[in-house]
Amino acid sequence: MRINGKRLYNHIKTLGGIGYEPELGTTRMAYSETFHEGRDYVKHLMEQAGMQTMIDGVGNLTGRIGGKSKQIISIGSHIDTVPNGGMFDGALGVLAGIEAIQTLRENGYQNHYSMEVIAFTEEEGNVIGGTFGSKAFAGVDQEEDVMRKISFYGMDSRSIQSSKRSSEDYKCYLELHIEQGGVLEANQIPIGVVEGIFGIARYKVTVCGKSNHAGSTPMNLREDALVKASQMILRMIDICKEVNSSMTCTVGKLSVEPGVVNVIPGMVEFCVELRCLDMGDIQKAVDKFMDEFCSDRVSIERFLWQRETEMDAQLKNLLGLCCQEQKIPYIEMPSGAGHDSINMALFTPTAMLFIPSVDGISHSILEKSEPEDMERGTNLLLEMILKLEKL
Amino acid sequence: MRINGKRLYNHIKTLGGIGYEPELGTTRMAYSETFHEGRDYVKHLMEQAGMQTMIDGVGNLTGRIGGKSKQIISIGSHIDTVPNGGMFDGALGVLAGIEAIQTLRENGYQNHYSMEVIAFTEEEGNVIGGTFGSKAFAGVDQEEDVMRKISFYGMDSRSIQSSKRSSEDYKCYLELHIEQGGVLEANQIPIGVVEGIFGIARYKVTVCGKSNHAGSTPMNLREDALVKASQMILRMIDICKEVNSSMTCTVGKLSVEPGVVNVIPGMVEFCVELRCLDMGDIQKAVDKFMDEFCSDRVSIERFLWQRETEMDAQLKNLLGLCCQEQKIPYIEMPSGAGHDSINMALFTPTAMLFIPSVDGISHSILEKSEPEDMERGTNLLLEMILKLEKL
Repeated sequence: MRINGKRLYNHIKTLGGIGYEPELGTTRMAYSETFHEGRDYVKHLMEQAGMQTMIDGVGNLTGRIGGKSKQIISIGSHIDTVPNGGMFDGALGVLAGIEAIQTLRENGYQNHYSMEVIAFTEEEGNVIGGTFGSKAFAGVDQEEDVMRKISFYGMDSRSIQSSKRSSEDYKCYLELHIEQGGVLEANQIPIGVVEGIFGIARYKVTVCGKSNHAGSTPMNLREDALVKASQMILRMIDICKEVNSSMTCTVGKLSVEPGVVNVIPGMVEFCVELRCLDMGDIQKAVDKFMDEFCSDRVSIERFLWQRETEMDAQLKNLLGLCCQEQKIPYIEMPSGAGHDSINMALFTPTAMLFIPSVDGISHSILEKSEPEDMERGTNLLLEMILKLEKL
Repeated sequence: MRINGKRLYNHIKTLGGIGYEPELGTTRMAYSETFHEGRDYVKHLMEQAGMQTMIDGVGNLTGRIGGKSKQIISIGSHIDTVPNGGMFDGALGVLAGIEAIQTLRENGYQNHYSMEVIAFTEEEGNVIGGTFGSKAFAGVDQEEDVMRKISFYGMDSRSIQSSKRSSEDYKCYLELHIEQGGVLEANQIPIGVVEGIFGIARYKVTVCGKSNHAGSTPMNLREDALVKASQMILRMIDICKEVNSSMTCTVGKLSVEPGVVNVIPGMVEFCVELRCLDMGDIQKAVDKFMDEFCSDRVSIERFLWQRETEMDAQLKNLLGLCCQEQKIPYIEMPSGAGHDSINMALFTPTAMLFIPSVDGISHSILEKSEPEDMERGTNLLLEMILKLEKL
């Protein structure tokens, strides 16, 4: 049994056209007009594939086919985008799920388990908060200010409560996604089996110096906050490499006070984000950094600590087995980006598959995945469903 | 003959109180109400000291006493301040000049040369442009957009032309100033004889990277513009030290694009300011920096090239001689900050004296110089005038 790659690609392109603006990309932020238009299209595809559809209190769309067992094999991802995003992030996982089930139906396959394709809302966090839809679905605690924000969209706490599913009903959750990085491409490997999703820690670092006249203060009498910060940034990256070579370390935000061309910086603030499969290694790196730099002139303050997510070991093994049987080269790799799978893994055994992103780019009009890679990934998803049917 | 240190200090405090706000400092920007109030006060002091006063077309105030010779020994500095500045920067040089001449008069001294104390306007460049007043006085070319700016203050090109003095009338210009740096204090030396004023070069550096997802892009596949910029900043400082240890190198302004905590910086722009007595050394340092870093991903663009200023050799020697005779320890040192002396040196033989700044701080409410240092500097100025009288 093989999925229809052309049809899948057409669906990707049609959904990607909803909210698309030339030279900018696709903007389909949760609860926007284009989001609703996109969701209507996906709902229509689900129904065409023979599924019963349902939209829950927060806006997640589910398509369902019954089976002999009430236990559900669920497949999904999200259909919202960042502003000026691409047409593959999220959309692929949802449309691949629909394509797999449509293929089963077209082949007259009688499914044992019930099956659901879930199109989560607001994964990107542009409107309410990251993975808001799958948090509600899986009954995971929401972020602090969610209640205030959802009221703008006509929702309240009941909308969230009513969207919560019962974990016992689910056998597993599978998510096919673009890698959003360049590892598969760099290694010329078409499939990544996700071993886990990086935990994230974020720190605000404040570096004090002595603001002074850039001409009359000789180099040996300076305490230049930006020079110190530059040393710290480079050293932090070295420390992370020493502790765990797969850890990422990013300083994406930095501000200089007073920020004037002829004044020595008196203060620099920057944010460090560390991601790793092992929160212990993050802590080790930060401890070392603090040992070296923390003083009365430097403060380091944590403002995010999001634990790593393990993928289900049995599902990972089965995905690897599918690849081997299909003679598809694959690697096990971490996901550096967050996904709805973070919440679903707390709810039901969960696994993820990656396909390559051209140039490792995502969240951009330049985001791209090749049709043959999407087809290969979706066929693997289908194989996986067939394997799970026998368990 | 000795000046009256108490009187000088009272004048400093009274002028410093005009435009003063508690916890903020003194704000007496050129052409403001407080500036005019301050100038009226200085004019009054000049007249009390027996001088004839005159205000020129751009607002410079001159007090004058005639002598047997029409040649003028001029002494001065400025009486405008930065917003929330101190009470010593500029003010000291003007009030010390008045004090020295008042002392001569009180001692019945008959001066050979004519003498002028000049209170320049708009040295700080907060309103029209740096050293605007002394540029007009010395007939130095003004900056590009000066004409547009002066029209807001009821001035035009004639105001500038009419303020230009005749170089032949002047024997020399002397400026006593606070150091605005910490060199004298660090070396516990009470007097600096300025050997020259640093030239200034400014460059805008644009560093391109590859903006990407901070989680899904492993460290070895990154092109992080901020990491590159950090390396460049540290290396630039090393290069400057290698080329000329007295050169200053400051990156006071830096911006990160897109500036988001979880996105790898795709572009960083920063400004490098280099100051040195030798423009050739600045060029050497920049050439080396460009050799190492300039590429299609890094651009370096010069936007300021202001030549260094030499102080008059004979006047420097005489100042040193005065110090030796008075048994006052002194060092020859460059001025890293710009002063009205830059323009006056193009007009008449010019020399500058520095006294210590407490903690090296200026342009701040914390700016401070000790009364005994101001008294010592003003006595030296008086000695210098007496020496010049015999030449």
